[in-house]
Amino acid sequence: MPMSDNQQSVGIVAAQTAVFDTPLTLASGTVLSSYELRYETYGTLNARASNAILICHALSGHHHVAGRYHADDKAPGWWDNMVGPGKPIDTNRFFVVGVNNLGGCHGSTGPSSINPDTGKPWGSAFPVVTVPDWVNAQARLAERLGIRRWAAVIGGSLGGMQAMQWSIDYPERLAHALVIASAPKLSAQNIAFNDVARQAIITDPDFHGGDFYAVEAIPRRGLRLARMLGHITYLSDDGMGEKFGRMLRSGEYQFGYEVEFEIESYLRYQGDKFSDYFDANTYLLMTKALDYFDPARDFDDDLAVALRQASARFMVASFTSDWRFAPDRSQEIVKALVEADRDVVYAEIESVHGHDAFLMTDQPYVDLMRAYLKRVAEEVGA
Amino acid sequence: MPMSDNQQSVGIVAAQTAVFDTPLTLASGTVLSSYELRYETYGTLNARASNAILICHALSGHHHVAGRYHADDKAPGWWDNMVGPGKPIDTNRFFVVGVNNLGGCHGSTGPSSINPDTGKPWGSAFPVVTVPDWVNAQARLAERLGIRRWAAVIGGSLGGMQAMQWSIDYPERLAHALVIASAPKLSAQNIAFNDVARQAIITDPDFHGGDFYAVEAIPRRGLRLARMLGHITYLSDDGMGEKFGRMLRSGEYQFGYEVEFEIESYLRYQGDKFSDYFDANTYLLMTKALDYFDPARDFDDDLAVALRQASARFMVASFTSDWRFAPDRSQEIVKALVEADRDVVYAEIESVHGHDAFLMTDQPYVDLMRAYLKRVAEEVGA
Repeated sequence: MPMSDNQQSVGIVAAQTAVFDTPLTLASGTVLSSYELRYETYGTLNARASNAILICHALSGHHHVAGRYHADDKAPGWWDNMVGPGKPIDTNRFFVVGVNNLGGCHGSTGPSSINPDTGKPWGSAFPVVTVPDWVNAQARLAERLGIRRWAAVIGGSLGGMQAMQWSIDYPERLAHALVIASAPKLSAQNIAFNDVARQAIITDPDFHGGDFYAVEAIPRRGLRLARMLGHITYLSDDGMGEKFGRMLRSGEYQFGYEVEFEIESYLRYQGDKFSDYFDANTYLLMTKALDYFDPARDFDDDLAVALRQASARFMVASFTSDWRFAPDRSQEIVKALVEADRDVVYAEIESVHGHDAFLMTDQPYVDLMRAYLKRVAEEVGA
Repeated sequence: MPMSDNQQSVGIVAAQTAVFDTPLTLASGTVLSSYELRYETYGTLNARASNAILICHALSGHHHVAGRYHADDKAPGWWDNMVGPGKPIDTNRFFVVGVNNLGGCHGSTGPSSINPDTGKPWGSAFPVVTVPDWVNAQARLAERLGIRRWAAVIGGSLGGMQAMQWSIDYPERLAHALVIASAPKLSAQNIAFNDVARQAIITDPDFHGGDFYAVEAIPRRGLRLARMLGHITYLSDDGMGEKFGRMLRSGEYQFGYEVEFEIESYLRYQGDKFSDYFDANTYLLMTKALDYFDPARDFDDDLAVALRQASARFMVASFTSDWRFAPDRSQEIVKALVEADRDVVYAEIESVHGHDAFLMTDQPYVDLMRAYLKRVAEEVGA
C-alpha cells in the first residue's frame, strides 16, 4: 500500500455482527422474530456520542464502506474515497457506521441466511422489506451502539431514500440528512427498468422460484442481465460515449454475435462479475424496496407534509448527467422541503459520470461534501 | 368496419412474393445464392412509373403496411394511419410498396426459412445482414416492379436509416428521402441496450445456439425480456408517467413479485405477445443491422462526405420526447446535409410519445407528412 493511500485510509477493519431478538414488524405485516445486522465502524465515538454518522448503502452496496480487511485486500470499501482520516467524511472527527441492510447478502439476515424455523435458507420465504423497515432496524442498531442522535445520516440513490425516511420517521434522532442522487419516489420508467431486471432473474430456470440454494443452482443468466441493464442506467449517454463510443474490439466488423464493440465487452464483464457474488433474492428485494419507496404516500401524496415531520437540516445533491434520478427528481425534494419550511442546501453538480457520480470524486462534489461536513463537525463538537 | 374507416382504407390487400435467383453478395462477404422477398403494394403505378414510394420498416415491422387481409382482420397494417386513400401517403396518388427485409420473419428469406442447401431452417447459419444489404435487395425488387426511380423512400427509426442509405448508394434512384426519428449511427448507449436484449435471447436455454427450430423450442423468455426492454426505450419517461405513473393494479402494496404496478402489467403483456410471434434470430439480426449502420464509416467518418453522394432531397423529422434517437441525433444528419449542400427540410415535432411517435398521429406530424408528400406528388405528376 503506498504511503499516501495509507495516510488517508482507515486501515485494516473488521466487520461486527449485532444480534436482535426483539421481534421486528415489517411494513408488510410480517414479523421477523430475530435477525442479525452486519456492520462496521470507523473512528471513535466521542463521550457525548454526538459525532456519529450513518452511511446507508444503495442497491448493491453493503456495510464495508472503508478500509481493507487485510493488507493484501485488492480493493477497499465501496466509499473509501469519501470516508477516512482527513477525507470529507473525516474519521478523525466522526464515528462512522456502515451497515448491511436487512435482506442483504453480505452478512445481515437475508434470503440466503438460514431460517431458524426450518434450518434451511430462507429463499422465497424471506419477507419483502421496505425503506422504513431498514430504518427501523438501523434505529435499533443505533440504540445498541449508544447513539441517540446521528450527527448525519448519509446516502446516495437508495441510500438517500433511507436518509430521507430517517428524517421523517425519527426526526429527533438525526441532525442532518444528506440525500445524494436520489428521488422522492420512482417514476414509471424507473419501475419498468426494475421489473425487466426482476423478470430476467425470476424467469431464469435456475431461479427455482427463489429456492435455488436447495438445488445448488444460481440464476446467473438473470443476475447478469439485471446487472448489465442496471449499468446502462448508472452511466450517462455522454459518459458512455466518451469512454467507449463505437470502439470495436478488433477494429473491423465481425458480422457475428461475439463481443464486437468495447461497450459490449464492458457490460458483459460487469454482468459476469456481479453474478458471481450477488444473491438473486437480495437483488429482487432491493429493487422492490426502491419501487415501494414513497414517503408522501402516507401523507395524502403531499411530500411537503411528509417532510414537515422532519427536524433535520438537509443537503440535497444531484448530478447533471444522471438520468436514473435526474436533477429534477432532487428538485422535487428541495421544493417540498422549502414548502415545509425546512433548512436545505441544494447543489446540482456538473458531472459526466451519470448516476454513478455519487460514488466518484468529481472535485465540486468532494468539495461540497467536505465543506458541509466540516460545518456539521463543528456544530456537534466533533 | 365503420364507413369512415372504409373510406380511408386501402381495403383488403394481399402479400406477394418475389423470388430472386441472382446471387446477392452481402457486406459480410457471404453470398446468398437465392432469396425471396415478401411485399405488398397499394395504389397504381402510373405509366411513367414516377409515383412509387418505398416504405422501409423498423426493427419489428414488415411488408404489411396498410389495409387488412380479410374483412374480419382485427388490425390493419402497421402504418395504416399514414398510408391510404386521402391519407398523408396518399394511395390515390402514389403507388406504395412495403417489403419485409431480408432476414425477417414475415415471409422474406430469413433464419426461420428453409435453407435450400440443407432442407432445414437456416437458424444460426443465416448470415448477418446490414442496412446496405437490405437496400441492395430492395433495389432489385424495384427493378422487378419496373421502378427506376422512387418518388420517395420513407422510413422511421431503422427504416429512416434505409432511406438514408438509399440516398447514398443509389443517388439517381430516388427523388426524396424521408428520415424520421432516426440517427446517423448508434451511440454506445444504443448499442448497450441492443446487447442486453441479444444476451437475453442468446443465454435463454431454449435458444440452442440459434438452432431451436430443430428441437421445437422457442426462446420465449429471452424474446420477452428483449421486448420489455425495447418498449421502455420506445416510450418517453413523461409519456409513461402520464399513462401509468405509479398506478397500482390492486390499489395497495402486495409485498410480493406478482404484477404490482400497472406499468409492469403493460410491459409483461407486450413481452408475452411479442414472444408468441417474433423470430428470435430475426431479432438478433435486426439489432446487429442497427449497430453496424454507420454510413460515414466508408467516408473517413465524415457524414457530410457520405451524404455528398446523395442527390435526393431530404425531409428529416424528430420528436421532442424521443430519447432512443433524440432530436440531436437527427440534427447531426441535418448538419451534415447542410454541410454537403443538400436540400433538407427539418422538423422537431412536439410529442409526448417518445420514439413511438413516428408510428402515431400527433397532428403536427401528420400535417408535415401531408404537406411534404403533396409537394412530392405534384412534382412527380402523381
